[in-house]
Amino acid sequence: MQTIHVGLIGLGTVGTGVVQILQQQADLIAGRLGARLVLKRVATRHPERARAVQLPAAQLTGDAMEVLQDPEIAIVVELIGGYEPARTYLLTALQQGKHVVTANKALLARHGRELFQTATALRRDIGFEASVGGGIPIIRTIKEGFVANQFLSISCIINGTTNYILSKMSDQGQDFQDVLREAQALGYAEADPSFDVDGIDAAQKIALLASLAFGSWVPSEAIYTEGITGVSQLDIAYARELGYRVKLLAMAKMAGSHLDVRVHPALVAADSWLANINGVYNAISLRGDKVGRNMLIGRGAGALPTGSAVVGDVVDVARNILHDSSGRVPPQAYQDHSLQDVPLQDMDEVVCKYYLRFQVADQPRVLAAIAGILGEHAISLESVLQKGREHVPGAPVSVVMMTHEARERSIRKALLAIATLPTILGKTMRLRVEETEEE
Amino acid sequence: MQTIHVGLIGLGTVGTGVVQILQQQADLIAGRLGARLVLKRVATRHPERARAVQLPAAQLTGDAMEVLQDPEIAIVVELIGGYEPARTYLLTALQQGKHVVTANKALLARHGRELFQTATALRRDIGFEASVGGGIPIIRTIKEGFVANQFLSISCIINGTTNYILSKMSDQGQDFQDVLREAQALGYAEADPSFDVDGIDAAQKIALLASLAFGSWVPSEAIYTEGITGVSQLDIAYARELGYRVKLLAMAKMAGSHLDVRVHPALVAADSWLANINGVYNAISLRGDKVGRNMLIGRGAGALPTGSAVVGDVVDVARNILHDSSGRVPPQAYQDHSLQDVPLQDMDEVVCKYYLRFQVADQPRVLAAIAGILGEHAISLESVLQKGREHVPGAPVSVVMMTHEARERSIRKALLAIATLPTILGKTMRLRVEETEEE
Repeated sequence: MQTIHVGLIGLGTVGTGVVQILQQQADLIAGRLGARLVLKRVATRHPERARAVQLPAAQLTGDAMEVLQDPEIAIVVELIGGYEPARTYLLTALQQGKHVVTANKALLARHGRELFQTATALRRDIGFEASVGGGIPIIRTIKEGFVANQFLSISCIINGTTNYILSKMSDQGQDFQDVLREAQALGYAEADPSFDVDGIDAAQKIALLASLAFGSWVPSEAIYTEGITGVSQLDIAYARELGYRVKLLAMAKMAGSHLDVRVHPALVAADSWLANINGVYNAISLRGDKVGRNMLIGRGAGALPTGSAVVGDVVDVARNILHDSSGRVPPQAYQDHSLQDVPLQDMDEVVCKYYLRFQVADQPRVLAAIAGILGEHAISLESVLQKGREHVPGAPVSVVMMTHEARERSIRKALLAIATLPTILGKTMRLRVEETEEE
Repeated sequence: MQTIHVGLIGLGTVGTGVVQILQQQADLIAGRLGARLVLKRVATRHPERARAVQLPAAQLTGDAMEVLQDPEIAIVVELIGGYEPARTYLLTALQQGKHVVTANKALLARHGRELFQTATALRRDIGFEASVGGGIPIIRTIKEGFVANQFLSISCIINGTTNYILSKMSDQGQDFQDVLREAQALGYAEADPSFDVDGIDAAQKIALLASLAFGSWVPSEAIYTEGITGVSQLDIAYARELGYRVKLLAMAKMAGSHLDVRVHPALVAADSWLANINGVYNAISLRGDKVGRNMLIGRGAGALPTGSAVVGDVVDVARNILHDSSGRVPPQAYQDHSLQDVPLQDMDEVVCKYYLRFQVADQPRVLAAIAGILGEHAISLESVLQKGREHVPGAPVSVVMMTHEARERSIRKALLAIATLPTILGKTMRLRVEETEEE
């Protein structure tokens, strides 16, 4: 039976998972693939981590070049994360004639185009299933399973940290800061959580998914991105009372001749599929013009789920090596000449329902003043929620309004005008409502 | 740009969908694949159906051999259903050097081994994503996405007709027969519904999924199969009261050295993912030893969702044609020499919780007698539900018991003994409870 040699750069959480999977599933994979995958060399700056996975010292190196220049290694797996030297390593591997597999969504979001073009030009494969949604086979589904579809929309819960935090806030009535500390203690959130809680991670992932689905490169920095730090316990409770849950959604859809791509917390109906994805699970809801709506759910992170996706890619690349069919599926799902440049929609043009929570003085005619300004901007109301007067006299009262569909620009202008009212005593909370009904 | 010619046999619901997709998405698919798919010839016994999809008469034929023997056609799509002549057509196509795509789960359940072996021997591809779960990319996920995993279990709602019926019975309190008539009128159930409501369709599908996941051919006739005709409104209402929904589940899991594969109605916790899959949606929950639990949800039937899967397979086969890599992924997910023969577990050995509904005489000590017999068979109770006495004196009373985990054999024997009690006035309903908690 033929042997295919694999090299690994990076022995962190996912790297360790990949080593374990390659060791434990060697026979299983050989029985399915028809060739043996052999992990020949692992480059790490932390050789002590090799003990946990029983890697002999001879397989270890502190120098990534020993992996990149090993003529026997056919597939290089990059799991160090970050932009550099990861980018240089992957480019070098491709130039050395190797195929590559990575889980590095940050790198792909920034340098994906360069990496994809290099791989295509050199007729080498680049696998990156593990970069979005951990073990969920979403890249494969977009590029291959739903290849016969024009994509209409993608809506996902794609960041485990924020979903864990929002789930806990919702289930246990805790505040953001308390849950965040708990998540950090459990290892579900980083010491510096901004990458996750500010929505940057989700933006990088939806940028990549949208680029594949719509065949137009979406720069993640251009995406409207709003995190969850502003979501309060109060908003979660009001949303619940109105029949909604608050989730950090990453979305992409065609809006006429523009692509509407954004990341922000949103209210989703309590009985919708996405509302019931809790804790560390990720879910990706896809709508294709032929297949209709599909949803994929799974663990969005972790050594073994992500490792499963990495090794799945390694096997995919290995099948191409065995059949001399590298480049069989183009990296960005489209042939180069079919890629387009679809402009992103301006956030001001977005149309949806809105949840607005005002902090107002407890006086007559306050509601009328707010509703009046909304009306001037052609924003009509679906419902209004004002709580009883069990509060300290003189302190602000919360008034929650759900609007009918309105344009973001109108909401923005109306809220600017409302902020000048003397009866408005604090910052107004504005959350978008996403309808994801199951048809 | 290269052209790949496709032939189609069968112009029913799915066939019509496939023609529409190939026509409408021609440019989109060419941009992704890098070659044009051209539908050259369609064989149908109902040429009048061609009008709906604007097929010129010259492309139509009443003779399948004109498709099978056309030297220009590289891929034959079989969508006539049934065993013969579908089997002969597919074998002939393979022998003529063509690749094949089919949505025919009944044929694959019965003759899959022969078809797979023929395709492998001739180095031809056989695509069958559309045979299970409509547009859901489940075959691809088992064979490719999760290739690095030992599968632990598959639990699915995989028959749209029964899920529609049970959802309606649950939501609207209607009886089986009424909902069935409604489903027939809407086209969700066949005039002869037995194939669906008796669980045969689900058994054929889970047989196929289990064969791929576990690398052991599972004959669908050997699977324990129980349909939903015995499920009454009363059971659905009691289940709801106990915090459960009733679903027709198809399951496969390793149980020691045996494969536990079965189809039957089951109680699933109301807050579990599967409980909330309603109407015509299908869902497949998979557990891999590395990836953990994943679930895929989508439309399990229909011209376009199923057509999407068929055309996805055609593109997959076309990529292999373009790269001369046919046979790249073996049909049954394993290389031939790695396939095994894992015996099926005897139903008597199954262990789970049970829902039991007894119809008893309204007399003292009846409960004690039933519980006594259950105790003699080492079956202990988790809860007992007996409704108030608002009934006709002398008429039977329903008593519902939920057991702790017990072995099917013990339950069977205990129920036989209980049936001999003079106070038992009707057939006892026995439903299994499946725990599918989200970890």
